[in-house]
Amino acid sequence: MDRLTIVSCDCHAAARPEVYREYLEADLRTRYDAMIASPEAVARRAAQVIGPFAPTGDGEGEREPLSARWDPVRRLAELDRDGIAAEVLFPQPAGRNAPPFYNVFGHPFDPNDPAAAAAGCRAHNRWLADFVKSSPAPERHAGLALIGLVDDVPAVVREIAWAKQAGLRGVILRSQPLSGPGWHDPRFEPIWAVCEDLAMPIHTHGGEGLETGDLPGATSIFFTEVCWFAHRLFWHLLWSGVLERHPRLRLVFTEQFADWVPGMLKRLDMQYAGTVSAATRTSALPMSPSAYWARQCSVGASFMTREECEMRHAIGVPSILWGSDFPHEEGTWPATPEALHATFDGVPPAELRAMLGENAMAIYGFDPRSLAAIAARIGPTLASFARAC
Amino acid sequence: MDRLTIVSCDCHAAARPEVYREYLEADLRTRYDAMIASPEAVARRAAQVIGPFAPTGDGEGEREPLSARWDPVRRLAELDRDGIAAEVLFPQPAGRNAPPFYNVFGHPFDPNDPAAAAAGCRAHNRWLADFVKSSPAPERHAGLALIGLVDDVPAVVREIAWAKQAGLRGVILRSQPLSGPGWHDPRFEPIWAVCEDLAMPIHTHGGEGLETGDLPGATSIFFTEVCWFAHRLFWHLLWSGVLERHPRLRLVFTEQFADWVPGMLKRLDMQYAGTVSAATRTSALPMSPSAYWARQCSVGASFMTREECEMRHAIGVPSILWGSDFPHEEGTWPATPEALHATFDGVPPAELRAMLGENAMAIYGFDPRSLAAIAARIGPTLASFARAC
Repeated sequence: MDRLTIVSCDCHAAARPEVYREYLEADLRTRYDAMIASPEAVARRAAQVIGPFAPTGDGEGEREPLSARWDPVRRLAELDRDGIAAEVLFPQPAGRNAPPFYNVFGHPFDPNDPAAAAAGCRAHNRWLADFVKSSPAPERHAGLALIGLVDDVPAVVREIAWAKQAGLRGVILRSQPLSGPGWHDPRFEPIWAVCEDLAMPIHTHGGEGLETGDLPGATSIFFTEVCWFAHRLFWHLLWSGVLERHPRLRLVFTEQFADWVPGMLKRLDMQYAGTVSAATRTSALPMSPSAYWARQCSVGASFMTREECEMRHAIGVPSILWGSDFPHEEGTWPATPEALHATFDGVPPAELRAMLGENAMAIYGFDPRSLAAIAARIGPTLASFARAC
Repeated sequence: MDRLTIVSCDCHAAARPEVYREYLEADLRTRYDAMIASPEAVARRAAQVIGPFAPTGDGEGEREPLSARWDPVRRLAELDRDGIAAEVLFPQPAGRNAPPFYNVFGHPFDPNDPAAAAAGCRAHNRWLADFVKSSPAPERHAGLALIGLVDDVPAVVREIAWAKQAGLRGVILRSQPLSGPGWHDPRFEPIWAVCEDLAMPIHTHGGEGLETGDLPGATSIFFTEVCWFAHRLFWHLLWSGVLERHPRLRLVFTEQFADWVPGMLKRLDMQYAGTVSAATRTSALPMSPSAYWARQCSVGASFMTREECEMRHAIGVPSILWGSDFPHEEGTWPATPEALHATFDGVPPAELRAMLGENAMAIYGFDPRSLAAIAARIGPTLASFARAC
């Protein structure tokens, strides 16, 4: 039987606090102990960022298989059950298993101490590299290094170089830098250069917005806005010429829907062409925005809707990556096979293979033969997607 | 002949500096003189906001009829030539004819002196009220009061009450308040109450974004983002319950395109229904977001494209307002008749009347009989739009 190799480009792994503690530099451990011992303080800070919704316990969803976050054996059993051959690993965005001092949707626990939050990200990255190495099937995990807070550019470059040699496969940036107007600032040039040179794709993940304050409606406003903030990296690096200067740099926009891509590209292409106003035609780029998107960008569409699948040619099949968001409750686990059929039944085989596995294998450097061997055991059959829709 | 009454819901009027000066409180005039005498300082500040594109002269476009900004006779001649019976008046966003101290796309000239910028807005409002009264045809102008900077809420309430009695027909807010997390803050409640009580619709106008710094790509980034920032007021007032508590409050979203409305409403309705994630279903509102939009919101679509016109039922015909953006060069002047035909030919008469005039007359309190008399002289014939498309 011909089985599909499924790669989930949006999964989350995390350590228990007592384990993260061991990866922290020693002088920060006492403060981390105090933070973990005071969920009220964490909740107060989280409420400043996202309003009354403030997960401080073990997770957002009661039904999540908690130990799968850090136990590779349990984790692989769940991937098998879901038919997923390999996965890309982001951290937990909030709660007790979020990276130390960096635990409220990308905002530091203490806004006045970004150095602690940066140390927390380093602790997560070192734990994650060890998690992948300790797995019975390391070839099934691609870990991403969390580059949370970027004011010390040389330190970030060192961290990315470390991540590469430690076996991690890309980096995660905040939706916007810690200070200054945005990612178009030329001071970040060394980051783009090292990511291009080392073939480390750069990710934003939906979930970081402007702080809304602990006010009525704040949580809903935060959720309405987070995806847009995650999109911004594209046009910041586009218009500032970063994508032109670094043609092998890759950007991946994860868990922020996919249906926005065609409209966004159309609007940027209009701006580039001066269709609306000559005043806005301010770019000297040699290619249109949609050409840079097609060359260098992917959308980590996660749990795509049927409607988004029907838009796949407008989005660009080569730029679409699917994801289960395991173990989060808004994702497809533990019913991934049903979710895949609901979205993809009737799609031609070549497009199915691309969106569900091949695109991801190319970007993250998974070995197609190793994964095919796993898929032969657990993957859904290609034939099962063949019914007309 | 049956002629259409055309109302442009997006026009711009402004005074010369020496005239604004007379409307400023006396203790600010010397500083204003110094600012006007130093276009370099204005340009430096503008570049912080919007990058290298920084209009400091008389206008953005060379071909604009400059004196029409402040001379009602010249202005009415241009409206006649364009077939426009009445107009809604915003200020100039930048350059020498922008409101004093508030002259760089909604950002104050001196960020450390918001009081001066607020005084500049008051000067513009008083000049605008006089402009309308001095016009040979005051019934053809609806001026909007600029409420630029909102930290002193009681002062804003007083300004809105003054504007109402001075004959102005609505207010313009910044895309976001001067300080704090957003318009959902309960401290702004008196503003929503007075606008509802006095039937003063609240506007945002595309053109204010986050400061981009004077960096490569900054101007393009600013133009890419300004429309989104102008949309935010809707979901800030929606999720915080303002639209529910003030059912007669009206919001108008001007010159920020129209094609975003259906997708935005669909996404917010999904969030309201918890379709994507139970975690994001955080609202206790009794109606869906699209129901509040239909009840209380309009999109000042300005120079609509044919494609946006074809989306009119998804946007909602009763919520669409057309605008020429006179005298800006990206608008339809001096070829409004041709632009109207390109966009609207073949649209049924009842929908044409609604989008091009009736919706606006209801919101802004124009007298349909007075405007019909003007339209009988200058308006395009309904029959001319009848050809199939």
